[in-house]
Amino acid sequence: MTRVAIVGTGMGRFSKDSDEGIESLLVGASKSALDSARNLAGRDIDGVMVSTNAHDSYLGAILAESIGAKPGVAQTVESLCVSGTNALVSGYAHIRAGLADTVLVAGADTFDGPGRVFEWDSSRGDDPRPVMWASRFAESYKTKYGVSDEQTATIAARAHKNARSNPDAYVHNAYTPQQVLDSKLVAPSIRLLECSRACTGSASLILASERVASRYTDSPVWVSGIGQSTLGASMTNNKSFHDIESAGLAATEALRTAGVGASEIDVAEVHDAFSVCEPMIIESIGIAPLGGGAAALCDMYGTSDRMINPRGGIVGAGHPLGATGIAQAVHVARQVAGTADAAQVDSAHIGLVHNMAAAGTSSTVVVLRS
Amino acid sequence: MTRVAIVGTGMGRFSKDSDEGIESLLVGASKSALDSARNLAGRDIDGVMVSTNAHDSYLGAILAESIGAKPGVAQTVESLCVSGTNALVSGYAHIRAGLADTVLVAGADTFDGPGRVFEWDSSRGDDPRPVMWASRFAESYKTKYGVSDEQTATIAARAHKNARSNPDAYVHNAYTPQQVLDSKLVAPSIRLLECSRACTGSASLILASERVASRYTDSPVWVSGIGQSTLGASMTNNKSFHDIESAGLAATEALRTAGVGASEIDVAEVHDAFSVCEPMIIESIGIAPLGGGAAALCDMYGTSDRMINPRGGIVGAGHPLGATGIAQAVHVARQVAGTADAAQVDSAHIGLVHNMAAAGTSSTVVVLRS
Repeated sequence: MTRVAIVGTGMGRFSKDSDEGIESLLVGASKSALDSARNLAGRDIDGVMVSTNAHDSYLGAILAESIGAKPGVAQTVESLCVSGTNALVSGYAHIRAGLADTVLVAGADTFDGPGRVFEWDSSRGDDPRPVMWASRFAESYKTKYGVSDEQTATIAARAHKNARSNPDAYVHNAYTPQQVLDSKLVAPSIRLLECSRACTGSASLILASERVASRYTDSPVWVSGIGQSTLGASMTNNKSFHDIESAGLAATEALRTAGVGASEIDVAEVHDAFSVCEPMIIESIGIAPLGGGAAALCDMYGTSDRMINPRGGIVGAGHPLGATGIAQAVHVARQVAGTADAAQVDSAHIGLVHNMAAAGTSSTVVVLRS
Repeated sequence: MTRVAIVGTGMGRFSKDSDEGIESLLVGASKSALDSARNLAGRDIDGVMVSTNAHDSYLGAILAESIGAKPGVAQTVESLCVSGTNALVSGYAHIRAGLADTVLVAGADTFDGPGRVFEWDSSRGDDPRPVMWASRFAESYKTKYGVSDEQTATIAARAHKNARSNPDAYVHNAYTPQQVLDSKLVAPSIRLLECSRACTGSASLILASERVASRYTDSPVWVSGIGQSTLGASMTNNKSFHDIESAGLAATEALRTAGVGASEIDVAEVHDAFSVCEPMIIESIGIAPLGGGAAALCDMYGTSDRMINPRGGIVGAGHPLGATGIAQAVHVARQVAGTADAAQVDSAHIGLVHNMAAAGTSSTVVVLRS
């Protein structure tokens, strides 16, 4: 079966107040991705996967037409906040299955688009806002492992700091841990500056089979491992609230298929929908020991160690839902290719992307290698 | 690479006046599909692909939870009326790529749901209703090949007649060609009884890798060929209006990968969004010579020859958008397995499904073999 490479990447600037529409966002990032590859035009694309929560129909075909492509497949993939990496995996699967050689994967959402609140899950209680599940997780995690408010505030401050070197992040403010602690308490154990915020944004990447990848780049980034886990749709499918079970299951499979151990990961972007999720995820993935994630991240604050969430994660970079997983993959691909500019991690060869949805009820993990 | 089989099929009754919701529709057809296989429970499902135009979020995970599955991937695939077979192909691709062994593919839409009118395509003129593009195609096709109103009315009458032996069809009225001709002219060259009509409905099937297929059935139906073609999103991407170019491109690829010729097809369900599309598609696919499709279908009227659209096609069975492609595949799978009951075509071993969207701007073709 063919290997699959990322041969092009493109980003749209994340913004809190853009009035750009979904089609325009998708086209912009996709043209950047095409331009980043060598001699790759729209007509060379034979598959299009769109990731969005927007309600527009037939966006795959619209995007194809807009870039001059006449692909085989063109479709939208939706799975709330994990749509981005799921679209990437769908493109990968079509190439591996022999159905395409080049797939454009493009994600976009707007700050006021659908998907920000998931009302179906009545196990969340009367308030379906994401911060309410995050609060449950935060209280459980902090109690279980004796993690303090100061520690999660430091993790948030680190995310905002890393985002300052990410030109596509929606804000570039440095906040101290004390400023995070002083920000509004929006739910028990969750401060405003510990929350990712919906914004407008887009990201695209281009996947290619091994047969054609060398036409388009001299530095392909290989998709070397994939794992996906869906526990259900209700938050009560999580066995506990002090870990992210789906992240652990997906990462185990992704690392197994990549043939690498968690200790070999050089750089990772993980889905810190809220700051407290960041240590929980790196623990569940095996990058930090159980209960040791918060201390590990706090130790990185104030140092040059950017191994985890070098672009600022989702708290720092902003969260345009359908673009998020693709933006994570774009950044990690650039890291392992050595082109991450100011955010570059030294000697990054093996990268990991963790993207999740709906109180961690599903996760997709992708391992990328240079 | 593994072969992929259909090991279970389930249908929900198509209806014009159901008040059932999307989740319930998806679960109903999916439970039927699970029941149709041997010893296959929800927990055995490791991928879920939902096909719908509905705006509900996270339906893949909701369906997984509702049937007791904890799959890897769970997502919605949307591409207007071709969502159904595109979801099937996504499931096939995940299995072929080694990401899953069993994928539930489930489609549903409601009679009043989104996707029935595609307003983005301004090349259609001031009236974006599908009947307006169909009218352009009908006038072009009838003029080009000298096809009469009586012939397309006979094709419609044949669809309604075939649907009488389809227990899931939304109506079971027999109409004579004269009754079709006497029905309301809804656009130039298009009568009301020549139109497919949106309805509520659902369909599900279960795909399995060769490694596990024999656990669940003694009569697997193999997905032996796939082709997909997207010309763009605007109807003006069609080179002409007297054929369905995307159907021809997708069928050529599907037949090539299946290693069979068009003359070897024993039974086919093709996407007759309007009656005039049926001859155009069988010509573009190569089942009938160019300009000879209408005469071929009229010759079948009044005989027992059900080779084309034995379940009544979309004009006869009804068109719950996201369910349509899956319902077509369910029926053709049953045909080649010899379990199509009153609609059974004699000695059907090689079947073809053609599903399309948005004025034929995209098509997916699947070849199924017993």
